[in-house]
Amino acid sequence: MKQEIPQLPFDFRHRLPLQIRFNDVDMFGHVNNAVYVQFMDMGKLAYFKQFMAGGFEKEEAVPVVADIHCTYYAPTLIDERIEVLTALETIGSSSFVLQQRIVAADGSVKCTARTVMVNIDTRTGAPTPVSDRWRTALSQYEGRDL
Amino acid sequence: MKQEIPQLPFDFRHRLPLQIRFNDVDMFGHVNNAVYVQFMDMGKLAYFKQFMAGGFEKEEAVPVVADIHCTYYAPTLIDERIEVLTALETIGSSSFVLQQRIVAADGSVKCTARTVMVNIDTRTGAPTPVSDRWRTALSQYEGRDL
Amino acid sequence: MKQEIPQLPFDFRHRLPLQIRFNDVDMFGHVNNAVYVQFMDMGKLAYFKQFMAGGFEKEEAVPVVADIHCTYYAPTLIDERIEVLTALETIGSSSFVLQQRIVAADGSVKCTARTVMVNIDTRTGAPTPVSDRWRTALSQYEGRDL
Amino acid sequence: MKQEIPQLPFDFRHRLPLQIRFNDVDMFGHVNNAVYVQFMDMGKLAYFKQFMAGGFEKEEAVPVVADIHCTYYAPTLIDERIEVLTALETIGSSSFVLQQRIVAADGSVKCTARTVMVNIDTRTGAPTPVSDRWRTALSQYEGRDL
Repeated sequence: MKQEIPQLPFDFRHRLPLQIRFNDVDMFGHVNNAVYVQFMDMGKLAYFKQFMAGGFEKEEAVPVVADIHCTYYAPTLIDERIEVLTALETIGSSSFVLQQRIVAADGSVKCTARTVMVNIDTRTGAPTPVSDRWRTALSQYEGRDL
Repeated sequence: MKQEIPQLPFDFRHRLPLQIRFNDVDMFGHVNNAVYVQFMDMGKLAYFKQFMAGGFEKEEAVPVVADIHCTYYAPTLIDERIEVLTALETIGSSSFVLQQRIVAADGSVKCTARTVMVNIDTRTGAPTPVSDRWRTALSQYEGRDL
Repeated sequence: MKQEIPQLPFDFRHRLPLQIRFNDVDMFGHVNNAVYVQFMDMGKLAYFKQFMAGGFEKEEAVPVVADIHCTYYAPTLIDERIEVLTALETIGSSSFVLQQRIVAADGSVKCTARTVMVNIDTRTGAPTPVSDRWRTALSQYEGRDL
Repeated sequence: MKQEIPQLPFDFRHRLPLQIRFNDVDMFGHVNNAVYVQFMDMGKLAYFKQFMAGGFEKEEAVPVVADIHCTYYAPTLIDERIEVLTALETIGSSSFVLQQRIVAADGSVKCTARTVMVNIDTRTGAPTPVSDRWRTALSQYEGRDL
């Protein structure tokens, strides 16, 4: 389990502290695998909400998870202080790729995730191009041309 | 989201029907991403318990998730009948690779997962070689030399 | 914890087998308190769906939980076979009172719940009288005048 | 649902802010019933941990939920700021009664809970008298003779 944590060519500008619940911890005394995916979801939601005026309901398109790849580096105990870091890796024509990390207070990495999200038209349910408004706002936030 | 589902060079011999809960369904009306990971965990547990005499507590080593890669193909509604299929892809010196699928009653695939599990010594918490007893039992079950 | 389980003047005609998940079990090795409430919800949903032609979305009014009182009698382990029993105690002018029990395969009671549900108009969100159609169907099912 | 919220003859001295998760919200757009019970558990844990030197594992006896009675007053939306208030109502010879409330930022009450917890000997699993050390510490915290 002593895997090398991959370096990324950009910084994480978005961080969300996480509250661990009693029932997140399984019979082995560790935060359960599936709970990390809840944490990643919370990071994504908080990240994208920054660019939405009135919540998901008001948007013409929303990003939906199509693929998630999590690597677990170290277990998390109930009393640890952790947060989820989120950054955009790239924006495709109608998709987003995100990098995320669950990190402890000392900076050590618990879990990494790379997620592909597809931009879905909320009326039709079909993929739709990422709008210029979103692309500009996200590039500005990340400080990179996306 | 119309992705091609990868072909595998083996069949799934283990299947577990899944019970969907009211609170598995999110505000978009679909079973939540993180719940699929719970389902995958249930499949793994049921798969490995077949080869354990007295539950995890009695074993000298247990497989622990190190890496999971889920691809989502279609949303699941609360009334659908689904099950999780599980098969071993390979056994390494001290690790397992599993392939899993959540499928609907009509055989359509909701989600696939490839998981790397590390064989952990329950006393030391360190990786340990997969025992010959396990390797033989698992090869026999899968009908392949693993 | 050796409490007396209250007798009820009616039988339970509705029973739903429950599937326990790995992450239902907490660090003490028991199914978590809050999970029993999920189980009770699943029992209620299955109970009421018997009388709905096309799911909750098609109904003019749906029952919503206003009050739940759970008593825990014995812990549940991951390998136990359990089910949730559900019966209507009474129907008020715009409310329902349900009795529920989580029981093991040997009939022993894990948890009881008494729940008050209010009949809510799906358009206005306000309480509304229980329809004669529902009252008749439910009385017939329970074999008692409700 | 316009029920009167009961007055209590004491104040709540313990409050824990709660982080709502995307998957806490059900298909009706409200935080699910069972999640409130998770919140109540988190309040209890944080309350009792104030009086434990080294976590539950170090204690000779721990309080375990025997009975919980929740009343729901208003639904909670994903963007609301809420916290859980916890106070001891009484201490019995080998039990505790707690009062709890989930409240919004404006002070409005979402849910109340009264919980009976039994003091369980961690070696035997049987009820055991509340220690004088605990009784004194808890009375001091609450500013009442318990």
